[in-house]
Amino acid sequence: MTPDDPNTDAASALDPAPSSTGNRNCPVRDVLDRLGDKWSTLILVTLSQSPQRFNALARAVPDISRRILTQTLRHLERDGLIWREVTPSTPPSVRYGLTPLGTSLMSPLTELIAWADRHQPRIVAARIRFDERKAND
Amino acid sequence: MTPDDPNTDAASALDPAPSSTGNRNCPVRDVLDRLGDKWSTLILVTLSQSPQRFNALARAVPDISRRILTQTLRHLERDGLIWREVTPSTPPSVRYGLTPLGTSLMSPLTELIAWADRHQPRIVAARIRFDERKAND
Repeated sequence: MTPDDPNTDAASALDPAPSSTGNRNCPVRDVLDRLGDKWSTLILVTLSQSPQRFNALARAVPDISRRILTQTLRHLERDGLIWREVTPSTPPSVRYGLTPLGTSLMSPLTELIAWADRHQPRIVAARIRFDERKAND
Repeated sequence: MTPDDPNTDAASALDPAPSSTGNRNCPVRDVLDRLGDKWSTLILVTLSQSPQRFNALARAVPDISRRILTQTLRHLERDGLIWREVTPSTPPSVRYGLTPLGTSLMSPLTELIAWADRHQPRIVAARIRFDERKAND
Protein backbone atom coordinates (compact mmCIF):
# COMPACT_ATOMS: atom_id res chain seq x y z
CA MET A 1 0.00 0.00 0.00
CA THR A 2 1.61 3.23 -1.14
CA PRO A 3 0.58 6.65 0.12
CA ASP A 4 -0.82 7.59 -3.28
CA ASP A 5 -3.01 4.50 -3.57
CA PRO A 6 -6.40 6.04 -4.48
CA ASN A 7 -8.21 3.51 -2.28
CA THR A 8 -6.33 4.73 0.77
CA ASP A 9 -7.68 8.19 0.06
CA ALA A 10 -11.16 6.80 -0.47
CA ALA A 11 -11.01 4.94 2.83
CA SER A 12 -9.77 7.94 4.77
CA ALA A 13 -12.43 10.14 3.13
CA LEU A 14 -15.08 7.72 4.35
CA ASP A 15 -13.59 7.08 7.72
CA PRO A 16 -11.73 10.05 9.19
CA ALA A 17 -10.04 9.83 12.55
CA PRO A 18 -12.75 9.72 15.24
CA SER A 19 -11.14 12.79 16.76
CA SER A 20 -11.91 14.93 13.68
CA THR A 21 -15.62 14.54 12.98
CA GLY A 22 -16.56 11.23 14.56
CA ASN A 23 -17.60 8.27 12.42
CA ARG A 24 -21.30 8.86 12.81
CA ASN A 25 -21.06 12.38 11.44
CA CYS A 26 -18.64 11.75 8.59
CA PRO A 27 -19.98 14.16 5.93
CA VAL A 28 -18.69 12.09 3.01
CA ARG A 29 -20.72 9.09 4.16
CA ASP A 30 -23.65 11.38 4.57
CA VAL A 31 -23.31 12.66 1.00
CA LEU A 32 -22.90 9.12 -0.38
CA ASP A 33 -25.93 8.03 1.55
CA ARG A 34 -28.06 10.57 -0.29
CA LEU A 35 -26.59 9.66 -3.68
CA GLY A 36 -27.16 6.01 -2.95
CA ASP A 37 -30.88 6.59 -2.82
CA LYS A 38 -32.01 5.35 -6.23
CA TRP A 39 -34.68 8.04 -6.58
CA SER A 40 -32.09 10.81 -6.20
CA THR A 41 -29.96 9.22 -8.91
CA LEU A 42 -32.90 8.86 -11.28
CA ILE A 43 -34.03 12.44 -10.74
CA LEU A 44 -30.52 13.83 -11.22
CA VAL A 45 -30.07 11.87 -14.46
CA THR A 46 -33.46 13.06 -15.72
CA LEU A 47 -32.67 16.71 -14.88
CA SER A 48 -29.24 16.42 -16.51
CA GLN A 49 -31.05 16.23 -19.86
CA SER A 50 -33.00 19.45 -19.30
CA PRO A 51 -34.82 21.36 -16.54
CA GLN A 52 -38.26 19.89 -15.89
CA ARG A 53 -41.56 20.84 -14.34
CA PHE A 54 -42.78 18.77 -11.40
CA ASN A 55 -45.43 16.98 -13.45
CA ALA A 56 -42.98 16.10 -16.21
CA LEU A 57 -40.62 14.62 -13.58
CA ALA A 58 -43.47 12.59 -12.12
CA ARG A 59 -44.14 11.16 -15.59
CA ALA A 60 -40.42 10.52 -16.26
CA VAL A 61 -40.10 8.45 -13.07
CA PRO A 62 -43.43 6.66 -13.22
CA ASP A 63 -43.12 4.39 -10.19
CA ILE A 64 -42.33 7.21 -7.73
CA SER A 65 -45.14 8.54 -5.55
CA ARG A 66 -45.76 12.29 -5.56
CA ARG A 67 -44.92 12.40 -1.86
CA ILE A 68 -41.51 10.74 -2.34
CA LEU A 69 -40.81 12.87 -5.42
CA THR A 70 -41.52 16.04 -3.43
CA GLN A 71 -39.35 14.83 -0.56
CA THR A 72 -36.46 13.78 -2.82
CA LEU A 73 -36.53 17.10 -4.72
CA ARG A 74 -36.44 18.95 -1.41
CA HIS A 75 -33.40 16.95 -0.24
CA LEU A 76 -31.58 17.54 -3.54
CA GLU A 77 -32.37 21.28 -3.37
CA ARG A 78 -31.18 21.42 0.24
CA ASP A 79 -27.90 19.75 -0.78
CA GLY A 80 -27.41 22.41 -3.48
CA LEU A 81 -27.57 19.86 -6.31
CA ILE A 82 -30.72 21.23 -7.95
CA TRP A 83 -32.46 24.61 -8.16
CA ARG A 84 -36.19 25.22 -7.84
CA GLU A 85 -37.85 28.07 -9.69
CA VAL A 86 -41.43 29.17 -9.05
CA THR A 87 -43.15 31.23 -11.73
CA PRO A 88 -46.09 33.12 -10.15
CA SER A 89 -48.50 32.29 -12.98
CA THR A 90 -52.04 30.92 -12.52
CA PRO A 91 -51.61 28.14 -11.57
CA PRO A 92 -48.02 28.71 -10.33
CA SER A 93 -45.46 26.73 -12.29
CA VAL A 94 -42.48 25.06 -10.56
CA ARG A 95 -39.39 24.02 -12.49
CA TYR A 96 -36.30 22.13 -11.34
CA GLY A 97 -32.83 21.89 -12.87
CA LEU A 98 -29.25 20.97 -12.01
CA THR A 99 -27.02 23.54 -10.33
CA PRO A 100 -23.32 23.66 -11.34
CA LEU A 101 -22.65 21.44 -8.28
CA GLY A 102 -25.24 18.93 -9.49
CA THR A 103 -23.78 19.06 -13.00
CA SER A 104 -20.30 18.31 -11.61
CA LEU A 105 -21.69 15.15 -10.04
CA MET A 106 -22.94 13.76 -13.35
CA SER A 107 -19.52 12.58 -14.56
CA PRO A 108 -18.76 10.18 -11.65
CA LEU A 109 -22.43 9.22 -11.36
CA THR A 110 -22.69 8.39 -15.06
CA GLU A 111 -19.58 6.20 -14.77
CA LEU A 112 -21.08 4.28 -11.88
CA ILE A 113 -24.34 3.78 -13.81
CA ALA A 114 -22.37 2.61 -16.85
CA TRP A 115 -20.53 0.09 -14.63
CA ALA A 116 -23.84 -1.19 -13.24
CA ASP A 117 -25.31 -1.43 -16.74
CA ARG A 118 -22.27 -3.26 -18.15
CA HIS A 119 -21.96 -5.70 -15.26
CA GLN A 120 -25.53 -6.38 -14.32
CA PRO A 121 -25.72 -9.71 -16.22
CA ARG A 122 -22.75 -10.94 -14.13
CA ILE A 123 -24.42 -9.77 -10.93
CA VAL A 124 -27.70 -11.45 -11.85
CA ALA A 125 -25.79 -14.69 -12.67
CA ALA A 126 -23.89 -14.50 -9.35
CA ARG A 127 -27.17 -14.16 -7.46
CA ILE A 128 -28.63 -17.24 -9.17
CA ARG A 129 -25.47 -19.27 -8.35
CA PHE A 130 -25.53 -18.08 -4.72
CA ASP A 131 -29.20 -18.96 -4.26
CA GLU A 132 -28.73 -22.41 -5.81
CA ARG A 133 -25.73 -23.08 -3.55
CA LYS A 134 -27.71 -22.03 -0.46
CA ALA A 135 -30.68 -24.19 -1.55
CA ASN A 136 -28.33 -27.20 -1.76
CA ASP A 137 -26.66 -26.56 1.61
CA MET B 1 -29.50 16.44 -26.98
CA THR B 2 -27.45 14.31 -29.35
CA PRO B 3 -27.72 10.51 -29.60
CA ASP B 4 -24.23 10.06 -28.15
CA ASP B 5 -24.93 12.21 -25.09
CA PRO B 6 -23.65 10.00 -22.24
CA ASN B 7 -26.52 11.08 -20.03
CA THR B 8 -29.01 9.72 -22.53
CA ASP B 9 -27.35 6.34 -22.13
CA ALA B 10 -27.37 6.69 -18.37
CA ALA B 11 -31.07 7.52 -18.42
CA SER B 12 -31.96 4.60 -20.66
CA ALA B 13 -29.86 2.25 -18.50
CA LEU B 14 -31.83 3.36 -15.47
CA ASP B 15 -35.20 3.53 -17.10
CA PRO B 16 -35.69 0.97 -19.87
CA ALA B 17 -38.93 0.86 -21.84
CA PRO B 18 -41.64 -0.59 -19.57
CA SER B 19 -42.15 -3.30 -22.18
CA SER B 20 -38.62 -4.69 -21.70
CA THR B 21 -38.11 -5.36 -18.00
CA GLY B 22 -40.63 -3.09 -16.31
CA ASN B 23 -39.51 -0.12 -14.26
CA ARG B 24 -39.85 -1.88 -10.95
CA ASN B 25 -37.48 -4.65 -11.96
CA CYS B 26 -34.84 -2.59 -13.74
CA PRO B 27 -31.64 -4.46 -12.79
CA VAL B 28 -29.42 -1.39 -13.04
CA ARG B 29 -31.51 0.40 -10.45
CA ASP B 30 -31.35 -2.69 -8.34
CA VAL B 31 -27.54 -2.75 -8.55
CA LEU B 32 -27.28 0.98 -7.77
CA ASP B 33 -29.58 0.52 -4.85
CA ARG B 34 -27.19 -1.93 -3.29
CA LEU B 35 -24.14 0.25 -3.98
CA GLY B 36 -25.95 3.20 -2.54
CA ASP B 37 -26.08 1.53 0.82
CA LYS B 38 -23.26 3.25 2.71
CA TRP B 39 -22.22 0.08 4.55
CA SER B 40 -21.65 -1.76 1.28
CA THR B 41 -19.46 1.08 0.05
CA LEU B 42 -17.44 1.17 3.26
CA ILE B 43 -16.91 -2.59 3.28
CA LEU B 44 -15.89 -2.66 -0.38
CA VAL B 45 -13.38 0.15 0.16
CA THR B 46 -11.96 -1.61 3.22
CA LEU B 47 -11.63 -4.93 1.36
CA SER B 48 -10.02 -3.20 -1.62
CA GLN B 49 -6.98 -2.64 0.59
CA SER B 50 -6.60 -6.33 1.50
CA PRO B 51 -8.74 -9.37 2.35
CA GLN B 52 -9.97 -9.27 5.93
CA ARG B 53 -11.33 -11.56 8.60
CA PHE B 54 -14.80 -10.83 9.96
CA ASN B 55 -13.51 -9.42 13.24
CA ALA B 56 -11.02 -7.14 11.52
CA LEU B 57 -13.85 -5.80 9.33
CA ALA B 58 -16.00 -5.21 12.41
CA ARG B 59 -13.14 -3.14 13.87
CA ALA B 60 -12.51 -1.27 10.60
CA VAL B 61 -16.18 -0.14 10.43
CA PRO B 62 -16.69 0.54 14.12
CA ASP B 63 -20.25 1.88 14.05
CA ILE B 64 -21.74 -1.12 12.22
CA SER B 65 -23.55 -3.79 14.25
CA ARG B 66 -22.45 -7.41 13.79
CA ARG B 67 -25.90 -8.26 12.45
CA ILE B 68 -25.78 -5.57 9.75
CA LEU B 69 -22.17 -6.48 8.91
CA THR B 70 -23.15 -10.15 8.45
CA GLN B 71 -26.15 -9.14 6.33
CA THR B 72 -24.16 -6.70 4.17
CA LEU B 73 -21.37 -9.24 3.58
CA ARG B 74 -23.96 -11.81 2.54
CA HIS B 75 -25.53 -9.37 0.05
CA LEU B 76 -22.13 -8.47 -1.41
CA GLU B 77 -21.20 -12.16 -1.71
CA ARG B 78 -24.55 -12.92 -3.36
CA ASP B 79 -23.93 -10.13 -5.89
CA GLY B 80 -20.54 -11.67 -6.72
CA LEU B 81 -18.61 -8.61 -5.50
CA ILE B 82 -16.77 -10.37 -2.66
CA TRP B 83 -15.63 -13.92 -1.90
CA ARG B 84 -15.94 -15.71 1.45
CA GLU B 85 -13.39 -18.30 2.48
CA VAL B 86 -13.85 -20.56 5.50
CA THR B 87 -10.75 -22.23 6.94
CA PRO B 88 -11.84 -25.26 9.01
CA SER B 89 -9.51 -24.46 11.90
CA THR B 90 -10.53 -24.42 15.58
CA PRO B 91 -12.24 -22.02 15.80
CA PRO B 92 -13.10 -21.78 12.06
CA SER B 93 -11.69 -18.66 10.44
CA VAL B 94 -13.68 -16.70 7.83
CA ARG B 95 -12.03 -14.32 5.43
CA TYR B 96 -13.52 -11.96 2.86
CA GLY B 97 -11.99 -10.27 -0.18
CA LEU B 98 -12.92 -8.57 -3.45
CA THR B 99 -13.65 -10.72 -6.51
CA PRO B 100 -12.48 -9.43 -9.93
CA LEU B 101 -16.02 -8.05 -10.38
CA GLY B 102 -15.74 -6.21 -7.04
CA THR B 103 -12.31 -4.91 -8.00
CA SER B 104 -13.69 -3.56 -11.30
CA LEU B 105 -16.20 -1.52 -9.30
CA MET B 106 -13.53 0.27 -7.30
CA SER B 107 -12.59 2.72 -10.06
CA PRO B 108 -16.06 4.33 -10.53
CA LEU B 109 -16.78 4.02 -6.81
CA THR B 110 -13.53 5.73 -5.84
CA GLU B 111 -14.31 8.58 -8.24
CA LEU B 112 -17.71 9.07 -6.66
CA ILE B 113 -16.19 9.08 -3.16
CA ALA B 114 -13.56 11.58 -4.31
CA TRP B 115 -16.33 13.82 -5.66
CA ALA B 116 -18.20 13.61 -2.34
CA ASP B 117 -15.01 14.35 -0.42
CA ARG B 118 -14.09 17.33 -2.62
CA HIS B 119 -17.57 18.87 -2.64
CA GLN B 120 -18.82 18.15 0.85
CA PRO B 121 -18.02 21.67 2.18
CA ARG B 122 -20.25 23.11 -0.60
CA ILE B 123 -23.03 20.64 0.26
CA VAL B 124 -22.81 21.46 3.97
CA ALA B 125 -22.91 25.20 3.14
CA ALA B 126 -25.91 24.69 0.83
CA ARG B 127 -27.79 22.90 3.63
CA ILE B 128 -27.15 25.72 6.08
CA ARG B 129 -28.37 28.31 3.51
CA PHE B 130 -31.49 26.23 2.75
CA ASP B 131 -32.37 25.79 6.44
CA GLU B 132 -31.88 29.51 7.14
CA ARG B 133 -34.09 30.41 4.18
CA LYS B 134 -36.83 28.05 5.37
CA ALA B 135 -36.58 29.39 8.93
CA ASN B 136 -37.19 32.91 7.57
CA ASP B 137 -40.15 31.93 5.37
